[in-house]
Order: sequence, then C-alpha cells, then structure tokens
Amino acid sequence: MNGADALIETLVLNGVTACFANPGTSEMQFVSALDRQPGMRPVLCLFEGVATGAADGFGRMADVPACTLLHLGPGYGNGLANLHNARRAYTPIVNVVGDHATYHRQYDAPLNSDIPTLVKPNSIWVGSADTADSVAAMTAEAISASYGPPGGPVSLILPADSAWTETSQGAVRAHRHEASTVAAGTVDEVARALRAAKKPVVLLGGRACLGPALVQAARLQAAGIRVMVDTFVARQPRGAGVFGPDRMAYFGEAALADLEGTDLMVYVGTTLPVAFFAYPDRPSVLVPEGCQTLTLADRSQDPVSALQALAEGLGAPSTGPVQPLKRPDAMPTGALTPQACGQSIARHLPDGAILCDDAVTSGGAIAVPCMTAAPHEVLALTGGAIGIGAPLSIGAAVARPEAKVVSLNGDGAAMYTVQSLWTLARENLDVTVVVFANHSYRILNIEMGRTGAGNPGPSASKLLDLGNPRIDWVSLAKGLGLNAVRCETAEAFDAAFARAMREPGPKFIEAAI
Amino acid sequence: MNGADALIETLVLNGVTACFANPGTSEMQFVSALDRQPGMRPVLCLFEGVATGAADGFGRMADVPACTLLHLGPGYGNGLANLHNARRAYTPIVNVVGDHATYHRQYDAPLNSDIPTLVKPNSIWVGSADTADSVAAMTAEAISASYGPPGGPVSLILPADSAWTETSQGAVRAHRHEASTVAAGTVDEVARALRAAKKPVVLLGGRACLGPALVQAARLQAAGIRVMVDTFVARQPRGAGVFGPDRMAYFGEAALADLEGTDLMVYVGTTLPVAFFAYPDRPSVLVPEGCQTLTLADRSQDPVSALQALAEGLGAPSTGPVQPLKRPDAMPTGALTPQACGQSIARHLPDGAILCDDAVTSGGAIAVPCMTAAPHEVLALTGGAIGIGAPLSIGAAVARPEAKVVSLNGDGAAMYTVQSLWTLARENLDVTVVVFANHSYRILNIEMGRTGAGNPGPSASKLLDLGNPRIDWVSLAKGLGLNAVRCETAEAFDAAFARAMREPGPKFIEAAI
Repeated sequence: MNGADALIETLVLNGVTACFANPGTSEMQFVSALDRQPGMRPVLCLFEGVATGAADGFGRMADVPACTLLHLGPGYGNGLANLHNARRAYTPIVNVVGDHATYHRQYDAPLNSDIPTLVKPNSIWVGSADTADSVAAMTAEAISASYGPPGGPVSLILPADSAWTETSQGAVRAHRHEASTVAAGTVDEVARALRAAKKPVVLLGGRACLGPALVQAARLQAAGIRVMVDTFVARQPRGAGVFGPDRMAYFGEAALADLEGTDLMVYVGTTLPVAFFAYPDRPSVLVPEGCQTLTLADRSQDPVSALQALAEGLGAPSTGPVQPLKRPDAMPTGALTPQACGQSIARHLPDGAILCDDAVTSGGAIAVPCMTAAPHEVLALTGGAIGIGAPLSIGAAVARPEAKVVSLNGDGAAMYTVQSLWTLARENLDVTVVVFANHSYRILNIEMGRTGAGNPGPSASKLLDLGNPRIDWVSLAKGLGLNAVRCETAEAFDAAFARAMREPGPKFIEAAI
Repeated sequence: MNGADALIETLVLNGVTACFANPGTSEMQFVSALDRQPGMRPVLCLFEGVATGAADGFGRMADVPACTLLHLGPGYGNGLANLHNARRAYTPIVNVVGDHATYHRQYDAPLNSDIPTLVKPNSIWVGSADTADSVAAMTAEAISASYGPPGGPVSLILPADSAWTETSQGAVRAHRHEASTVAAGTVDEVARALRAAKKPVVLLGGRACLGPALVQAARLQAAGIRVMVDTFVARQPRGAGVFGPDRMAYFGEAALADLEGTDLMVYVGTTLPVAFFAYPDRPSVLVPEGCQTLTLADRSQDPVSALQALAEGLGAPSTGPVQPLKRPDAMPTGALTPQACGQSIARHLPDGAILCDDAVTSGGAIAVPCMTAAPHEVLALTGGAIGIGAPLSIGAAVARPEAKVVSLNGDGAAMYTVQSLWTLARENLDVTVVVFANHSYRILNIEMGRTGAGNPGPSASKLLDLGNPRIDWVSLAKGLGLNAVRCETAEAFDAAFARAMREPGPKFIEAAI
C-alpha cells in the first residue's frame, strides 16, 4: 500500500465514493490506485470548474462529500469559482490537490505555486500530507473538517512522493461532528420577542431550508408568523405538498419594500440579509430601520429541533400550510418566452426531480409555476459565480441516479463550463440541460443602469452582447456528444421537454427565447 | 470624470490600449467609461481564462501590458491558471479586478471573497484603489510595477464606489524601470571561467531568447561555446536567418545525458534548470555533478549588452551561425501524423508568422521542421497550465494585426479554454487554430509509467482517455462561429493549412492524428 492507496481507502471507508477529476502527472499515483479500489467512482471532467461544481452538486444531494482531484495550483485555480459557490452553499467537498514531491518544491519548477495561499479563501480546512505515513490520518481529518458544521470545501494537498511511497498506515475512520442544539433559553427569548412583535419575519437559510426544517417552519406560518427564505438557497424542496415560504427579493429596494413595517427578524441557519451588490444611494442592509434582529439558530446549530421547540413554545398548530398540486392546464403556445418555458417545466417535471438553477434572468419565470408543480428539489447559485448549472447537475445525477435532473442555464452562464456537456454524455447521466439563449448578458443590461452608469454605448455594448456571432448551441452540444434540439416556439419546447422527461439519459435543449 | 474614467485615461496615456474583459455588475462603470475613451479596445471573452491568456499573448508580442477586466474573486479565479503561465513568462499584465463598494465589503455579500489573498501568488504587485482620488496614481503604479524588470501580472483591485465617484485626479504617467547593466567584473569573471572550461554551456532564458540577444549569443556559439535555451520560452524567433540554439530536453534524464561532461553552465536571463516533475529515483536538478554554475545576467538585467560584452571579451567573431531556409520539398502524403503536420506547417508558414504552442505531445514534431522554415516567432507554454494556445493567439493577433498567427493545441489542452474560438470569430482575427485530436491525455499515458504507477487499468483509463464520446471539433468550432474543417490525411491537412495561410481571417483545422 502506498500513500495514494491510503488516501483512497480512507475516503471510501468514510463514504466518499465519487471522484470528479482532472488529473495531471503529479496525480498519476492516485489515478493508478483507483484500479485497486473499485468502491471509488472516477468521473473525468475536461475542465476543473466542472469537477468542483459537480462535487458541490453531489455534496448537496448526498450530504456526504465527493472528492475532486486537481492538478497543482493552476488546476485548483480553474476550479476556484465553483468552490466559491460551494463555500457559500456550505457543501462538504474534499479537494485533493496534487503537488510536486516534497523535495522538488524547493526548485520552483514551472508548475510550482503557493498552493496553501491559493486555497485559503475557499477552504474551511487546509492540510498537506507531507509523508506517506500521514496520508490516512490527514485524510480522515479533512473529511471530518468538511462536515463542519457548517460544512464546506477542504483542501488536502498531496505531494507526489507521499503518494508513491509505501506505508503501513491504512484507512482511518473520520468523525462527523453533529450540529449543536439551541439552548432552551434562546428559544424562549425568541418566542417572547415573536409574541411581542407586531409584524415579525422568520428568515430561513442553509439547512433550515431542507425538508424537515420546512415542516416545522410551516407551523410558525400557521401561527401567523411570516416565514421567508434567503434569495439563494443551496437546496430546497419545492412544489406540491411542500411548504413554500416567500423568498427575499434579489434587488435590495424590492426586498425592503416587501419587508416594510417588519419590526422583528429572526434568523434560522442564516444571518443579516444584505444586497447582492451595492449601488449608489441604495441600501446595503436589507433590514428595515428600527427592526429588531435575533438569531434562533446559527449555521452550526440544528434548525429542526430549534424550529420545533419554537413552534411548541408558541403553541403553533401541529402542521402548517403546503403547496397544492396545480400544474398549468394547457400547453403554452406562440413565441417562446421564459414564462412559456416555465409553464412547460411545471407541466412535465416528474415527482422527485432535481432542478439545478443557473438561469439568471430567466429563472424567475420558471420558479413561479414550479411552486405548484410535482414535488422536486432546487439547487440554486449560492455564490454568484455563474457557470454552475451543468456541473451541479453532473454531481446531483451521480449522487441520485434514480432522479431526473434538470439543469437550467443562461447562455452566458453555460459558456463558462460548457465542457460539462461532454461528461454528461460520457457518464450517460439522466440530465436534461436547458440553455436559455438570449445571446446577451441580459442581467448586465439591467445592472448597468442601476449602478448609475447609464445606457451602454458602442464600446460598452461590445461587452454585454453575445449575439455576434450567435452561438449555435445545438452544434456545440452535438460536438460534445449530446442529443440536442433547438426550440423556437412554445409548442416545440413543450414537446421537447415532455419527451426529455419521459426518456432517460442526457438531453440538451436550446430554448431560443 | 469618475474613478473609472481616471483608470482608463491613465491606462491609455501609458499605452495600455487593449482590454480583455469578462465583466459583471461591479465593473459596469468601467464598461461605461469605455464609451468615453475610444483609445481602449475592449475584447469580450466568454471565460476569464481566455482573457488572461490573451493578455499574456498581447504582452509577449507588444512588450506593453494589456489590461484584463475581471469580476471579483471568482472572475479572477477563472483567469488564474493562465496568469500562472504569464507569471512564468514574466509578461506585464494589468489585471483590473472589480470589487464590491468599499462600504459594502463588511457585509460579506455572496460574491465577496478575500481578493488580496487570492491574487497574491500570481501577482508581482497588488493594490486596491479604495478612493476615486487614488485611482489614477495607483493605476500608474500598477503599470510601472508590471514592467519589473522582470515583468509580470499585477492586480489592481477596483471597488465599485471608487469607480462611480467623481474625481479631479486625472491620468498619471507611469515610469518604466529599465533593466540594469551587468557589471564589467561579472563579464570578466564569466569570460575567464569560459576560457578555463573544457565543455561549457551558456543557457539562455526569458529576454535572452529575444532577437537582439540571440544575435550576440550566436557569436559565442561561433567561438566554440555551446549555447542552449530553456525548454519553454515565452517568446523566441525561429527559422531561416535566426540563430537556433539547442533546447534543454523536457525529461530530466535526457537533459542530463545531453549535458554529459559539461563542466560549466552560465545562466543568462534564467537560473538553475530543474525537471518539470519529480519521479522516483530520477534527478530534480538538471546540472551534471561537479559542473560549475555562474550567472552572467539575471532576469532583471539586460542580456543584450551582457552577451555582447562577453562576446567581445572572448574575441568571438562578429557574427554567429543562423539557420538556413530549408522547407520540406514535397507535400507529405498518407496517414496524418504530427510529423506530417509539422512538414506542412514548415512548408506554408509565412514570413513573420506567430506560432502559439500548446501542442503538448504533438509539439516536438512541429518544432523540428520549423527550425528551417520562414522566420517566425514562437510563444510557448511557460507554466505548464495547459489551455493557453488559443487565448495566446487572440492576444498576439490583437497586438500584431499584420501577422499571421497560428495556434497549435492538443485536444485535451484546447478544451480548457474552448470559449476562445468565439472571440476569434467575433474579432475576426487572422488566426488559424489547429487542434491535434488524438482523443487522449496522451502525455499522461507516458507520465504514468515514469511516476512508477505502472500501466492504467480500467478505472485509471477512464481518467486518461477522451475518446468516449469522441469530441467533434468541427461541430464545436462551427457552433462558436468559426470556419472549420477536419483533416484525416496528410494531403488534406497540407491543402487546408496552405489555404489558411493564404486567406486572412480566423480558421479552424481539426488534425485527426
């Protein structure tokens, strides 16, 4: 057994069974060791941003980390943007970053870089296994750390000689620290404040948006307390039979208008809501002036027992409201719009589907009708780094092979990690990718005015428009091995989406909106 | 004038006239300011790794930095791998990294991250212009810093409020520090050591591989001293009429075999040669045992005057050897191989072409016949982070619109930054992209054995093979707006490449080797 074996044995022993990889020379021992441990599923990604986004999707759905295999500093760099998103989603991920042999680092060979500094901003734990004997124990430590709570990406640096050197230190079991329970006094304090408030809001984020917590939160809503969720949530069940709390609006002034008169905000699994961006003369903090704020449970605490205790303390009904099943009656017709796509998606989405949302300006029109679609789960863009929709779907499909996965993407967003389409085809994953092709960074046309920068002139337009040349998405998707179709009418989209939901396997739909 | 105007005015005043951009909301003021300063050419890239690689290609050819425009930490992260390469190429680049408004940073909004830490490993200077009044002076400082010597990427962080706030502090002129001159005593010491040595080598790197330095180095060769260049050089003239020194071999044992008996190595614009990777029981340092080493000029010093003084001191002839013009006589025939491609490229490459080389295992077969092709320049992969071939060609073509640019890419490498093809089409650049499609990470099949990891089994093969599904490069390139052709025979490649060299504008050739 060498260090690479010790690493993989420790990962598999602790349930880390998927590896999203883009290896290089320094990772060859890890790659070779995969042949000796069939418990690990290797998934090749042709760009590291695909690998890290896939690991995020896997971790969100499995609640167990996947690992990535990345080639030194530049390989990690390519995966960085989606690790930023994963950090904001609190997703456990074990990044294995190959490095030069320990004795070779001093020579500053061309691929050498300061890996510990590079990984720091997006890692909740960093370690370098500088001997083969240390690999297993350090891997177990990395896995434990990735769970938090709250969880997040960790970076385990693996020098080449630690991988190729023999060791007798075999697999080590990792410990998962459970979320702590909120003190009874805190629950009482929040209950008292809620009773005293005229117009309170309970704001949910993170794990407080998962199914069991939503059930308890719905009881508060039944007791007359408004429950809301953060604008972007890592994973949330939605649709018929599920509590559907209001969502914080994206633009700050809309959020504050919605919250007008609110005199108490209680945070569960989240914290102070703030604007996504600052704009001249608009607010950063999305709490009304004079509104009191309290934390029921922070991200390291168990939201389910806290919400349950609060509901009991308030004498709330034993169950709360859930969404009805109310699919659009008829097929949409005419011009293809995001609204028409949303109707079709709500009509045909099967029970238990997973929806990975990187649809940017097209997203809202999908979300509204899906509130009363068949029950499904939504994975949102938590960190604002676009290009996660297709990678997320890879990981979700590997974690949940029985589910239909739908990946919704703006065209600008989809281009960042277009290499994802190849992995979907190679692994024959049950994923339908929809790209909303408006041939523009549409959101930036909106944002430009909001930042006070006025309307785009000739030079500015060159940086916002994607229409020259028009990307032929069907040609792209076919080139990467996918079954692909372009839909230019609502009828065509409805038929294509319905077929994709019926038939298993990877599909690609360009929605020419 | 606001801070964004002050930034762009300062850039243009100092000759920074190309901006490779992938902006977001926090950069809208910069984008808007472009409309007020037509001296800056904005080039949209659909992924930041394209923008940074293009800035590298521009800087190598123009010897003046381009700027990039990147969206906060994740945008920089996406561009990181090619900035790693640029750092290793010592290319001046001014990265403008947009950030949240200064007062908004404290709220840790979703796109917030620790930018100063992220940029540190690949920046030779970092600054944050936290007021509008500081923007112009800090931009000038950034430009100065990017020149070194030696040069490199710098990171100028631009908070949104510094961009949108009015200022009276207009454009500031930057100072370029010249390379220092090597002391006469050092030249004398090296000359004495060279006279005393039995089998000396002068090793050139960096700016010592540019034309004026090569002319002087050739005189040493004429005086009987072996002159060599580093394995990977940022920019080097090649072909007929140019001195063609030997190149350090990629694999360490081959390099040491080549250097056997060498008793003195003199560094000019470079330092200790080391193996690209470590392998069990193979050397890291590529200097023969007992060989003396001396530095004539380090990377901050002027190599031309130093080499000239050394040649005079040694009484070397006034001119040295240059390569003859010796194009392959006949069109290659039969199966398409890298060798056949190399012959066609050497036959048809026009005078003054720029060749961007990210061809990995296919590269050697191109380089050999090009040694006696028409004179051209080669830009190599300096940092080992593949995916730079097409981005480099964008920047080279923007810097030198009169030149024919050829981008050579392995298929695995080309996938990393496939978005480049769209920018080539949009800007109608005179670039011919060749992708060598062997449907494999071929280099890793070689490296796996060398690291002692044996032959790939079923799991390992899944991470080395790109053949399932086969990428249809022509479909991909057409989808991104390029004129594209697949060549399966030597005759077809020769005809396609000849045509591409005759006709202006972007072309794509899949070489099905």
